[in-house]
Amino acid sequence: MSLVIIGSLAFDTIETPFGRKERIIGGSGTYCSLAASFFTQSKIVGVVGEDFPDETIEFLKGKKIDLKGLEVRPGKSFFWEGHYGEDPNKRTTIKTEPNVYEDFRPQLPPDYKKDETVFLANIDPDQQDEILTQVLQPRLIAMDTINLWINQKRDSLLKVLEKVDLYFANDEEVRLLIGEKNLIKAGKKILDRGPSFVVIKKGEHGALVLGKDFVFGVPAHPCEEVIDPTGAGDSFAGGFLGYLDKMNSFDDQSEIRRAAVYGSVLASFVIEDFGINRFNTLTMKEIQDRFDQFRKLVSF
Amino acid sequence: MSLVIIGSLAFDTIETPFGRKERIIGGSGTYCSLAASFFTQSKIVGVVGEDFPDETIEFLKGKKIDLKGLEVRPGKSFFWEGHYGEDPNKRTTIKTEPNVYEDFRPQLPPDYKKDETVFLANIDPDQQDEILTQVLQPRLIAMDTINLWINQKRDSLLKVLEKVDLYFANDEEVRLLIGEKNLIKAGKKILDRGPSFVVIKKGEHGALVLGKDFVFGVPAHPCEEVIDPTGAGDSFAGGFLGYLDKMNSFDDQSEIRRAAVYGSVLASFVIEDFGINRFNTLTMKEIQDRFDQFRKLVSF
Repeated sequence: MSLVIIGSLAFDTIETPFGRKERIIGGSGTYCSLAASFFTQSKIVGVVGEDFPDETIEFLKGKKIDLKGLEVRPGKSFFWEGHYGEDPNKRTTIKTEPNVYEDFRPQLPPDYKKDETVFLANIDPDQQDEILTQVLQPRLIAMDTINLWINQKRDSLLKVLEKVDLYFANDEEVRLLIGEKNLIKAGKKILDRGPSFVVIKKGEHGALVLGKDFVFGVPAHPCEEVIDPTGAGDSFAGGFLGYLDKMNSFDDQSEIRRAAVYGSVLASFVIEDFGINRFNTLTMKEIQDRFDQFRKLVSF
Repeated sequence: MSLVIIGSLAFDTIETPFGRKERIIGGSGTYCSLAASFFTQSKIVGVVGEDFPDETIEFLKGKKIDLKGLEVRPGKSFFWEGHYGEDPNKRTTIKTEPNVYEDFRPQLPPDYKKDETVFLANIDPDQQDEILTQVLQPRLIAMDTINLWINQKRDSLLKVLEKVDLYFANDEEVRLLIGEKNLIKAGKKILDRGPSFVVIKKGEHGALVLGKDFVFGVPAHPCEEVIDPTGAGDSFAGGFLGYLDKMNSFDDQSEIRRAAVYGSVLASFVIEDFGINRFNTLTMKEIQDRFDQFRKLVSF
């Protein structure tokens, strides 16, 4: 089993109340693939510039992540700078430099085309749509997006939404996309547009999973310090999709629920340190222990 | 067993996206006692003016609520006007007229003084402190407050906090009181000041219960329409404390968890209609069914 991830590998400059880090490794594809690597093989489709460090490539390979779909092009890698204040759910983008992503058109390597689990990270919805034509036998296609595309390419985005099985979004994005404040109503309206499942991430308030006939509420791990919230959403998606791919189960409600808890667990770890640092030491035992803590957190 | 509630009976004028209601029955004591009445006998300590309707008094008596502690004084009852926008968690107070509450000094009737479960609703902290001297053999004293007292009588409030077992607050109040954004940290700082339990209500995001050695996360019932959020917090407290009083259990973690779910269930019903209307038809069977739905909501 494999999870194909179409996402970015990037440099991030991040400022949080806990410090400032210049040009550390980030990107949706990076976070998602590392989180998923605890459950299944991740395959990344993306592009980096010649400035992207060999150590990171080796680190990803060390996690058995397949990089056949990663192009290296002349020029600079994607760069993002973001600042967080006291509320880790709110971030301000200071700068975005697409660089080599500017005219990148993702192409799946031949063997990726037959993979069944695909994650379209928050890239241009027209590119997401183009990718879908390359997937030959999908069982679960999941997508994410950002406010930029909701504002600038709403129609394209809604077209992709019709074709995917699962939509990951945060509460702000769901409200912006659907124009409905109540998250349950907003989630149901998204289900009406095509996906079988909607996962609404709410930061410190956990997440809601809506299916056609159920709602699942996942509280967040009670974190006392969020060192760096960057990558939490992509790590959530990685844990979620990696688990489902491993279980080879894509529509069973019980597995979807467990997947959401693993997603929440992975997100709760990644925010404990800057960038992808937490993945240097994270073990499957820690993941399993925290999964068990989630049970205790909600049991009554 | 009985739950003694020191709180208000009032007229409220309420405007929400679902309509406007003039001078309907409200008040922390009213909501809390009605919610608790499904589990135990509520006893109210409060004051109303001569304008307070007999039908409401009869309605409360019909729910076996003890009104020996309710004074009727010449003058007008407490009046509050509040408006809610699209976000049910945010309200604007338009007007507050204390009227007969202006110089009311709550006195417990003799037989109330021996009751073991006491709820100090959001009255002046100096009055809360005075009440505490009248309680002879408390087993669980719970308190609530509002931003007004945190801003105007912070020292008095912190003094009361030291003497109570359980503090109910919403997320905004906890942050304002302790000056800490992170709710887990803020909750622990409150525990350090005396209470054994802190219940942080987060509206549509549910609630967190913190004890000395545990955290419990309760998601909110997935409501699609919040007709009127007024009284949700007091109904939460009523369900919570009424259940504990009924079980005669005040420090068992499992019972505290179940109490929080009952609190959340009662709050989820009251917001389905304006004012206390939902209590006209609410049954114990509906409460139990929704309690069971909460289990399904969080199980994995």
